[in-house]
Amino acid sequence: MKGFKFAGIHAGIKKKDQKDLGLIYCKNPAVAAALFTRNKVIAAPVILGKKKIKKGLCQAVLVNSGNANCFTGDKGIKDAIACSKMVATSLGIPEDFVLVSSTGVIGQNLPMDKFKVGVPDIVIHLSADHADDFADAILTTDTHNKIVKKSGTIDDKKFSIMGIAKGSGMIRPDMATMLAFICTDINISAKDLKVCLSAASEKSFNRITIDGDTSTNDTLLALANGMSGVKINDTDSKKNFQDMLDKVCIELAKMVVKDGEGATKLIQIIVKGAQSKQDAFKVSETIAHSNLVKTAIYGEDPNWGRITAAAGRSGAHVVPEKMDLFFDDQPLILKGKWIGDEAEKKTAQIMKNKEITITLDLNIGKETDFFLFCDFSVDYVKINAEYRS
Amino acid sequence: MKGFKFAGIHAGIKKKDQKDLGLIYCKNPAVAAALFTRNKVIAAPVILGKKKIKKGLCQAVLVNSGNANCFTGDKGIKDAIACSKMVATSLGIPEDFVLVSSTGVIGQNLPMDKFKVGVPDIVIHLSADHADDFADAILTTDTHNKIVKKSGTIDDKKFSIMGIAKGSGMIRPDMATMLAFICTDINISAKDLKVCLSAASEKSFNRITIDGDTSTNDTLLALANGMSGVKINDTDSKKNFQDMLDKVCIELAKMVVKDGEGATKLIQIIVKGAQSKQDAFKVSETIAHSNLVKTAIYGEDPNWGRITAAAGRSGAHVVPEKMDLFFDDQPLILKGKWIGDEAEKKTAQIMKNKEITITLDLNIGKETDFFLFCDFSVDYVKINAEYRS
Repeated sequence: MKGFKFAGIHAGIKKKDQKDLGLIYCKNPAVAAALFTRNKVIAAPVILGKKKIKKGLCQAVLVNSGNANCFTGDKGIKDAIACSKMVATSLGIPEDFVLVSSTGVIGQNLPMDKFKVGVPDIVIHLSADHADDFADAILTTDTHNKIVKKSGTIDDKKFSIMGIAKGSGMIRPDMATMLAFICTDINISAKDLKVCLSAASEKSFNRITIDGDTSTNDTLLALANGMSGVKINDTDSKKNFQDMLDKVCIELAKMVVKDGEGATKLIQIIVKGAQSKQDAFKVSETIAHSNLVKTAIYGEDPNWGRITAAAGRSGAHVVPEKMDLFFDDQPLILKGKWIGDEAEKKTAQIMKNKEITITLDLNIGKETDFFLFCDFSVDYVKINAEYRS
Repeated sequence: MKGFKFAGIHAGIKKKDQKDLGLIYCKNPAVAAALFTRNKVIAAPVILGKKKIKKGLCQAVLVNSGNANCFTGDKGIKDAIACSKMVATSLGIPEDFVLVSSTGVIGQNLPMDKFKVGVPDIVIHLSADHADDFADAILTTDTHNKIVKKSGTIDDKKFSIMGIAKGSGMIRPDMATMLAFICTDINISAKDLKVCLSAASEKSFNRITIDGDTSTNDTLLALANGMSGVKINDTDSKKNFQDMLDKVCIELAKMVVKDGEGATKLIQIIVKGAQSKQDAFKVSETIAHSNLVKTAIYGEDPNWGRITAAAGRSGAHVVPEKMDLFFDDQPLILKGKWIGDEAEKKTAQIMKNKEITITLDLNIGKETDFFLFCDFSVDYVKINAEYRS
């Protein structure tokens, strides 16, 4: 994509010999919009980012893994500013146009000596072809990097969107992605970009969950440098761009869930027939967060009792005798009644798949919502019990 | 305790050769009060129990494990009524005075043939000395039975309370215990008994969590037969009884958490210095439910970043820079700052204990609340992945 360069290197922030420092650079200041974590304990780079994004312009994003720079007080803020300055100096751009982002362990100060060497070094590695390196450098417990590229046309002119994300643990809808960066060559206002980004997030990152925790560092950032020459200037072009952005975000969100810590399956729960949108959300969210549902799915057990019990405690209006429940297209409960051994056997077979859609029709209204989630495995516990040791 | 008899037998409801049918019988109709699950998907015996308890009198309680009689529609209600009738006939008491309770797998009809043989049989086994058998018969994935006995005096006259509970999975504060039965020989009105039971529950069963799910069958039932001759008739005697009832419920609740599915540790989180009682509740509840906190505790890791991050996403007002965090008496965070390696080493040592108190002082108000919870182990996932198979 025109105008964007990427780099990812090992700067020594992580103990292991893995890439841990990433940089996105744009030839010209790009229009920028961002969504940040709703957690009230927020990391220094997020505190800083919230202020800087107000200008609506960004030319470089420095991301480190291995250290979240969170719960680090004034020192953390100073360190984040110092990192921004290093990037500005090394690239010869205004510090105002530099954003920083961090992910990793909470409560330790950034190893600034590593940044002092790493930042000038990473600038040398910038290339339009190094998106993979950047995507690798931002990972923590992810098992692989996550990149989605899409192109579309508006008025016969091509535009592109590339999204790069990291996920794994601590993901829930309060601001789902840990870190995701969207680069596009579309020409769009900062205001419109924010609206489109929020809408895309509602259909993707805000509808996924891995373990119900929210990170202190979650950031979804979009940069639009306008270099495709395609301008968003009417409802049609905006819709066209929105559709493409939705696709990129949904694909990234699915990749994040599939790579959830210890995940073995990707599940979509669709709740239909709710009396209100809020009820549909509550029921789907409660099911997606239920440890009993998630462990049953890990055990490949179509344990509909746990699903309906989760619906019952969601706070939404539900009538057990009206519920229909499907695994993919196979019904197992109709009007609140288990329909028998044969259906049970078929759903048990479906549960062996890697991707499963569970549909709960409440049959008391017209509203619908959904969630994407993963199962809960023995490995999840192992990964998270041993994270800091 | 005067006037109560118990029994527990294997009636064949569970496949394994374990006790699965329990009965409590009181010589005279006892004053009764109960709290039931807040889940909207509720089991047939709870639907029935909610109606019957309004009379405020109960003489017999039949409890089965191995089958929850939930999501069983009209047939489930009929079966529950049929069970009540069998008990009434076998004991020669009014059906109105019989309560039934079930726990186990959801969505299967009760094996009525087992009850037809089992109910007349269990009546023969009734004895004042068989509380252990009853306590065994109501268990599901619990590893041992849970009985607490306490005695007190009012006006130099002795009264007693005995509590029997089962717990394990699917436990959260919306109505914490799965099943708990309190028998006392105090003389108390049904109204006062309900008030005392609710107050005790707020300090015990409503402050514990294992996996964040609520059962469809949760029931806390108290029976008071008055046979001690000790009457609750003033503020002092009521307080005396309340204190004893609190102790019984808190001890039972702790036993339930300690025996949580796969649990290896009992944790009390105390949240102090909140701006409101509701905030103190929210923060303690969010920490107690955080899978990341629970897995860290399983890994014996004083991962304060996860604890403070959970506080941050609780919805309560918190100021990271004001927080103090203690593991037992050892501070690790003071005014939002990690106090160093030596404190970290000491807390790491404390994390090896079986019982740990974590205190988070928000330092922005005067309200306090607490939760009891267990860690989240590899065995929890194993138990719950394989529950139905």
